[in-house]
Amino acid sequence: MDYQPLSGREFPRFSAIKTFFRLPVATPQDDFDVAFLGIPFDGGVSYRPGARFAPSRIRESSSLGRGFHWGRGEQLFSKLKCADIGDCPTVPIDLAQTYSKIESFIYQLVSKQKKFIAAGGDHSITLPILRALKKKYGVPLNLIHFDAHLDTYPAAWNCEYHHGSFLRHAIEEGLVNPLQTLQIGIRGPLASKEDLDFIQKHKITCWTMDDVRADSIKSIVRQLPHFTSGPTYLSFDIDGLDPAYAPGTGTPVPGGLTTYEVQQILRSLKVSHLVGADVVEVCPAYDHSDITSLVAVDVMFEILGILSQ
Amino acid sequence: MDYQPLSGREFPRFSAIKTFFRLPVATPQDDFDVAFLGIPFDGGVSYRPGARFAPSRIRESSSLGRGFHWGRGEQLFSKLKCADIGDCPTVPIDLAQTYSKIESFIYQLVSKQKKFIAAGGDHSITLPILRALKKKYGVPLNLIHFDAHLDTYPAAWNCEYHHGSFLRHAIEEGLVNPLQTLQIGIRGPLASKEDLDFIQKHKITCWTMDDVRADSIKSIVRQLPHFTSGPTYLSFDIDGLDPAYAPGTGTPVPGGLTTYEVQQILRSLKVSHLVGADVVEVCPAYDHSDITSLVAVDVMFEILGILSQ
Amino acid sequence: MDYQPLSGREFPRFSAIKTFFRLPVATPQDDFDVAFLGIPFDGGVSYRPGARFAPSRIRESSSLGRGFHWGRGEQLFSKLKCADIGDCPTVPIDLAQTYSKIESFIYQLVSKQKKFIAAGGDHSITLPILRALKKKYGVPLNLIHFDAHLDTYPAAWNCEYHHGSFLRHAIEEGLVNPLQTLQIGIRGPLASKEDLDFIQKHKITCWTMDDVRADSIKSIVRQLPHFTSGPTYLSFDIDGLDPAYAPGTGTPVPGGLTTYEVQQILRSLKVSHLVGADVVEVCPAYDHSDITSLVAVDVMFEILGILSQ
Amino acid sequence: MDYQPLSGREFPRFSAIKTFFRLPVATPQDDFDVAFLGIPFDGGVSYRPGARFAPSRIRESSSLGRGFHWGRGEQLFSKLKCADIGDCPTVPIDLAQTYSKIESFIYQLVSKQKKFIAAGGDHSITLPILRALKKKYGVPLNLIHFDAHLDTYPAAWNCEYHHGSFLRHAIEEGLVNPLQTLQIGIRGPLASKEDLDFIQKHKITCWTMDDVRADSIKSIVRQLPHFTSGPTYLSFDIDGLDPAYAPGTGTPVPGGLTTYEVQQILRSLKVSHLVGADVVEVCPAYDHSDITSLVAVDVMFEILGILSQ
Amino acid sequence: MDYQPLSGREFPRFSAIKTFFRLPVATPQDDFDVAFLGIPFDGGVSYRPGARFAPSRIRESSSLGRGFHWGRGEQLFSKLKCADIGDCPTVPIDLAQTYSKIESFIYQLVSKQKKFIAAGGDHSITLPILRALKKKYGVPLNLIHFDAHLDTYPAAWNCEYHHGSFLRHAIEEGLVNPLQTLQIGIRGPLASKEDLDFIQKHKITCWTMDDVRADSIKSIVRQLPHFTSGPTYLSFDIDGLDPAYAPGTGTPVPGGLTTYEVQQILRSLKVSHLVGADVVEVCPAYDHSDITSLVAVDVMFEILGILSQ
Amino acid sequence: MDYQPLSGREFPRFSAIKTFFRLPVATPQDDFDVAFLGIPFDGGVSYRPGARFAPSRIRESSSLGRGFHWGRGEQLFSKLKCADIGDCPTVPIDLAQTYSKIESFIYQLVSKQKKFIAAGGDHSITLPILRALKKKYGVPLNLIHFDAHLDTYPAAWNCEYHHGSFLRHAIEEGLVNPLQTLQIGIRGPLASKEDLDFIQKHKITCWTMDDVRADSIKSIVRQLPHFTSGPTYLSFDIDGLDPAYAPGTGTPVPGGLTTYEVQQILRSLKVSHLVGADVVEVCPAYDHSDITSLVAVDVMFEILGILSQ
Repeated sequence: MDYQPLSGREFPRFSAIKTFFRLPVATPQDDFDVAFLGIPFDGGVSYRPGARFAPSRIRESSSLGRGFHWGRGEQLFSKLKCADIGDCPTVPIDLAQTYSKIESFIYQLVSKQKKFIAAGGDHSITLPILRALKKKYGVPLNLIHFDAHLDTYPAAWNCEYHHGSFLRHAIEEGLVNPLQTLQIGIRGPLASKEDLDFIQKHKITCWTMDDVRADSIKSIVRQLPHFTSGPTYLSFDIDGLDPAYAPGTGTPVPGGLTTYEVQQILRSLKVSHLVGADVVEVCPAYDHSDITSLVAVDVMFEILGILSQ
Repeated sequence: MDYQPLSGREFPRFSAIKTFFRLPVATPQDDFDVAFLGIPFDGGVSYRPGARFAPSRIRESSSLGRGFHWGRGEQLFSKLKCADIGDCPTVPIDLAQTYSKIESFIYQLVSKQKKFIAAGGDHSITLPILRALKKKYGVPLNLIHFDAHLDTYPAAWNCEYHHGSFLRHAIEEGLVNPLQTLQIGIRGPLASKEDLDFIQKHKITCWTMDDVRADSIKSIVRQLPHFTSGPTYLSFDIDGLDPAYAPGTGTPVPGGLTTYEVQQILRSLKVSHLVGADVVEVCPAYDHSDITSLVAVDVMFEILGILSQ
Repeated sequence: MDYQPLSGREFPRFSAIKTFFRLPVATPQDDFDVAFLGIPFDGGVSYRPGARFAPSRIRESSSLGRGFHWGRGEQLFSKLKCADIGDCPTVPIDLAQTYSKIESFIYQLVSKQKKFIAAGGDHSITLPILRALKKKYGVPLNLIHFDAHLDTYPAAWNCEYHHGSFLRHAIEEGLVNPLQTLQIGIRGPLASKEDLDFIQKHKITCWTMDDVRADSIKSIVRQLPHFTSGPTYLSFDIDGLDPAYAPGTGTPVPGGLTTYEVQQILRSLKVSHLVGADVVEVCPAYDHSDITSLVAVDVMFEILGILSQ
Repeated sequence: MDYQPLSGREFPRFSAIKTFFRLPVATPQDDFDVAFLGIPFDGGVSYRPGARFAPSRIRESSSLGRGFHWGRGEQLFSKLKCADIGDCPTVPIDLAQTYSKIESFIYQLVSKQKKFIAAGGDHSITLPILRALKKKYGVPLNLIHFDAHLDTYPAAWNCEYHHGSFLRHAIEEGLVNPLQTLQIGIRGPLASKEDLDFIQKHKITCWTMDDVRADSIKSIVRQLPHFTSGPTYLSFDIDGLDPAYAPGTGTPVPGGLTTYEVQQILRSLKVSHLVGADVVEVCPAYDHSDITSLVAVDVMFEILGILSQ
Repeated sequence: MDYQPLSGREFPRFSAIKTFFRLPVATPQDDFDVAFLGIPFDGGVSYRPGARFAPSRIRESSSLGRGFHWGRGEQLFSKLKCADIGDCPTVPIDLAQTYSKIESFIYQLVSKQKKFIAAGGDHSITLPILRALKKKYGVPLNLIHFDAHLDTYPAAWNCEYHHGSFLRHAIEEGLVNPLQTLQIGIRGPLASKEDLDFIQKHKITCWTMDDVRADSIKSIVRQLPHFTSGPTYLSFDIDGLDPAYAPGTGTPVPGGLTTYEVQQILRSLKVSHLVGADVVEVCPAYDHSDITSLVAVDVMFEILGILSQ
Repeated sequence: MDYQPLSGREFPRFSAIKTFFRLPVATPQDDFDVAFLGIPFDGGVSYRPGARFAPSRIRESSSLGRGFHWGRGEQLFSKLKCADIGDCPTVPIDLAQTYSKIESFIYQLVSKQKKFIAAGGDHSITLPILRALKKKYGVPLNLIHFDAHLDTYPAAWNCEYHHGSFLRHAIEEGLVNPLQTLQIGIRGPLASKEDLDFIQKHKITCWTMDDVRADSIKSIVRQLPHFTSGPTYLSFDIDGLDPAYAPGTGTPVPGGLTTYEVQQILRSLKVSHLVGADVVEVCPAYDHSDITSLVAVDVMFEILGILSQ
């Protein structure tokens, strides 16, 4: 297999069966470097559901994608062999079964030395991914976490696992190193002051919007921490962006990042061993003209750029 | 309390806090006859989620409602004392907890001799309602069931309870009398011929669209069975209507009922002891200009007409 | 001027400045038979405003219109000289001033022996039109009135004139002959039984949806009354149609007419002296893909067919 | 290959890479009976473009499809081996090149004795399909043609080939037998009386909406002509349906077919040798909640039922 | 009454009858500090109507609201007793009656020493509010006015009062102190140079977008004037924001504020005696996915923060 | 003719037949300075079509336009005589014929010493405009080009002319002086590094988004090159803006310009001899609430400001 995207000069970009970036379909056993996959599950959401349709819509929007990254000066799909491995099996009405399926699926993938970029799904999918990665790598991961929300919230309605608690569990289970965790884009009213206890206690680095806007974006990106040792994971909740840029999401919060800021940050991150990433909480039923899906595609492409470092 | 809707001459219909039909808010203990309530849960859906937002949107659309039923020649809100008792508590990400809460809530209500019309939620909410009614009335209920789907499907992904299996469980648990069960609006491709086994085995009366259209609607409604003995429940899945009339739903099926047919059928039903009803599967994120919510309002009003018989 | 629509073979139908049916722009003084005009006023609505944008959107949708009426076997734009005379001036926030402007504008037009088809606006615009016609013709007019609502309602919030009272005033002011008034499409819950008093007292012929559906549409249209003496006016409230066919309106009511039924009725009406007509209550902000505007265009074209009899 | 749709019990219907009816992907050389394919081209439209996105959206909507046809009592995907062969290559901005590609692609397919159901694209794609079929079968084809429009129009803007002229060319080129051509759903204003000359001269059987509604649909379908000798083609323009049922199309015409009528007609057609079919003019940008795509899926499934006869 | 918002842990945020911020319903006589209320009137608009639906939609969007203000380090709903007092009565088709009702309603409220945050309605509602406040406080108020437009325009169509003239009347009637009036966000083409005369003559402080962008937002907010003596009112026209951030409004103007800028300005304002505020011109029919309503909620919460100073 | 826009005080802005900025309709022969016109052609697009509807929608949105430019301190419609000359004829399905018609139409216009601002259409319309201008002025033009894309791409599918190649042809045909060509807003992934060869070889000045954001916008605009000799053309592809600001376009690219930045750049450009301009790639079917059309109106007004220098 040659792992090249279907050319727009052969089939126009609106045509052909939709895969991520028009890449060939592969199985985890095949000879590629980076897998694109969907994890269509939204059974952990507290407000607007619908992220289960995100992988399908992001595949469609990714038809517009091209491969040469101007800033990096590289044809990413030539540097890395990439493929669409389809969707991870999920059970829309059972979080526990789904967690088990995600963990197995990802573990199977990474145990073959593959890296991956997953399209969620809501943010509850990240926890079983991290469990699989911890099992593979044996050490807590570094984490880069874009979000409007802290995602360290307690159980809700007697349910430990939901889309606002992945980071708390990830740290409590030792999957993630809090001292090497960076949050970006956090903002908005909280339920109470206690919401801040967890990140303060665990010394998580939290860049609120005020931190991101404390200086010009050119200056800010120079202050990003480096992730030069140990495996690193990147989880991108699309609501880190402002609703003007990403309206199609489940719990939008005004006052967020612009796409340009996201691009600058992602291009400036120094990550020596990125092992996987996800883009979550795209909710197509609340999008218009697929602008949110298109931003998700852009983020996935920038993440591929980090993987190519 | 006088249980009269807020007049549009006092507050225009776009104004005021939204309750069903602009009725006063009450608690189950209050002195009314019929409760309107929401059961915002969509954790049982297999395709498009979002019915959790239906109670809110149906309340809004019901602002256009008026009380005099022309065909029946009665002011329904004068004949019956009606109130909005708010929403039944639910847990969006846990079907088992939600089932327990629904059963308790409905049982508490009917044990006070109240009747009710509930706005779902997906169709999985009907099973715990029926459990509560069986507990209250002690006998299997008669059932009038509008739907595009049979809802007698087997477990999916190892999950017994979902939005396509309520009727199977209701019959297997003895909550409903299959010989006094009438389905209306059924149509569309099936997964396999075995899908028909359950209703055939249990001798459920199933009116497909072909049955409804076998003659003029005026003739057809004269052939409706009567439900003159025993408590009767009515469950109205909005997808019984054609997608042209009710686009805002999770699993639409072309070739369905028109609103006029639904009105004629509901006005012609002879039901001597209707104890409760639901309207389910309205999914506002897929609606436009609230036409589906408005149809749900219309159905709820016609059901109130049956309760007034 | 040749009063021919701009051909789609010269300028594609999506192009050119938008006039009704791509007709030339004229002034009331010019030498045409039938004027198309807009009356963009929605200051009489009780629920969803927005009909002020209908003339503009209907002009756009009418670009798809063609001139040969198959059933009548005639090129209507050849038989009658038609023109777009622009919009009647209105004051969006003052009903009284607007009524005066409409009455003057229409009187000026009909005093020059012109006929017209107007695009509203909400239904409150019909009253000043009828005043102008009464002034011109000196006798109460016959009226054909498509609507879901009776429009004989009393004052609201101390306001005599609103979009639900035009017919009451028209009869009370002697503008319309109730014995030669036909209502079609009426349905839906009423505020109270007293809502029926006016039409009963004045012996208005009211065809409810049940009347329209009492037999096949082919049979029903044969029972339409004839309007063979005296000037006749036709007022078409788009909510006479079902919300599935005309979602873009302010106070939709489920269970209404289909476009085919409307076409059959309009083609079967025997009217010897139609002097004017309106199509009102199209509300583009609640439409989708302009299907409601397109129905309005269709109705206007069928009315032109009646004018050509 | 087993040519079975991916089960919804394995992967929920919102998940997995989207193919028609979740069928496996195949090449024309593979061992199947019926190919589903897309022909994404809208370079022949005179008003609203966008049908190029229909194959993608119809694939997505077909995820809801199931295989057991109740009326026929058969599992269609078991009776016939079906596959998705992807999209025919097209050139969005060059009709001539596209015609050549379509003709080659279809000829290659049918020369391997395959049958097919194609999703357009606008109606201009049907002509090169018919050219390929004529080349294969050597005789003019019988044609069943659902549409609001006659599609026998002359050249426009000096362009012979566009979405309103396919039938004229097909007959002039001898691809189709006019005496075995049936049009269904025709309606709406024409440019002039001359528009009728072609079908009258060639004695095409044209069922207008008045013909379809001349009696009950049960009676009407019994009058359908049989196509018992010679190869037959079926071309379904989605605008044959009323805009209430199929808003997502380029040139909608009020007063059209309902989905139920279409189902009844398709189930009643007697066609002994159907060799191919298309569903065209679905325009997703003007659809809402994919109800038009879903109708297209329904039509494709009913056509498969005819192929299984 | 405890004046606490309904917890999302008790009822999920999509459920329950919708009040502002899920606060309890109260009457003006009750023992609270700050009233949230709706003033659903859009009878003063010159272009797109529909703001009458804003209170209902903002109530719905405010379900996502939480109470702890990070920047201020306070639980605002604990510091201040807040309640939803429903909607002020209005007459949709009569501005004069509505003005009288608003003035009475607000005066009744403030005469009981309550403060309030009102959701309009169009900007014409602010004038009767200011009249009530002047009556209560006896002195001209300080005014903080976010808007794209000056709102000092002359009478239109012989109507003195409309949504573009409130500030002119407020100053001419002596309700507002022009020397203590600050406008923010002003921009866009004017009808003529004379439009600037009023603010220049009255020495109103007008911060155009160029003024807001003259330096970094961090620097700009340090230059905000203080309002340390006398009662102050804040009127927030949502079109002060750019249409990308607030598309759902009646007369959008490109080039406006971002939500982040608004948050920074509102958090930096020094106002010692804020007595009331409004957020106006949200027009839900032109919104998508409620992003504009959500911004309105955010602004209301920030205003509550100022009230808590 | 007095070439003044229809006043909003005479006819409210939602009323009257829609022309650009409510200007009078004129023919190219009339006595005006600047023509507004539409060029409704989208036959050159590779992804989402629909720009053919832009002139109509931009005319509608321009109803909100006013004439006094605050920054320039001038009533532009008084300084320059402006008119709407309607649409250039086009052939939706034939690029070659359309190119010929555009070139003739523009040449006819400029040969009468008129300047113009055209609303496309897709970006393929710019090439025949430039051909007409070259013919008129005899020298290669200076070009100011806002876009996300370079538009120097090679032939696609054997088609030389499409919406991504206008600049390549303009330079190869000697219509434009590459040394006096400024691109602004360029960004996004490329197909390959070779995409940059053309602009590098021809020494085109290309301001990417990184260049625009290298300093504050106030500083950046001071670095804009001056165009003080020779005729200059300005081509504004609406996708130069970020999709948050201009969602209604065919090939959106995240990370683009804001409307404020565009306003600042357009107000700062020093152009002594602007001879024409276009705004292209507005695609109304993908817009919401016309925010993209409104931005196009804003850009056209700012360009008029440059023409008034």
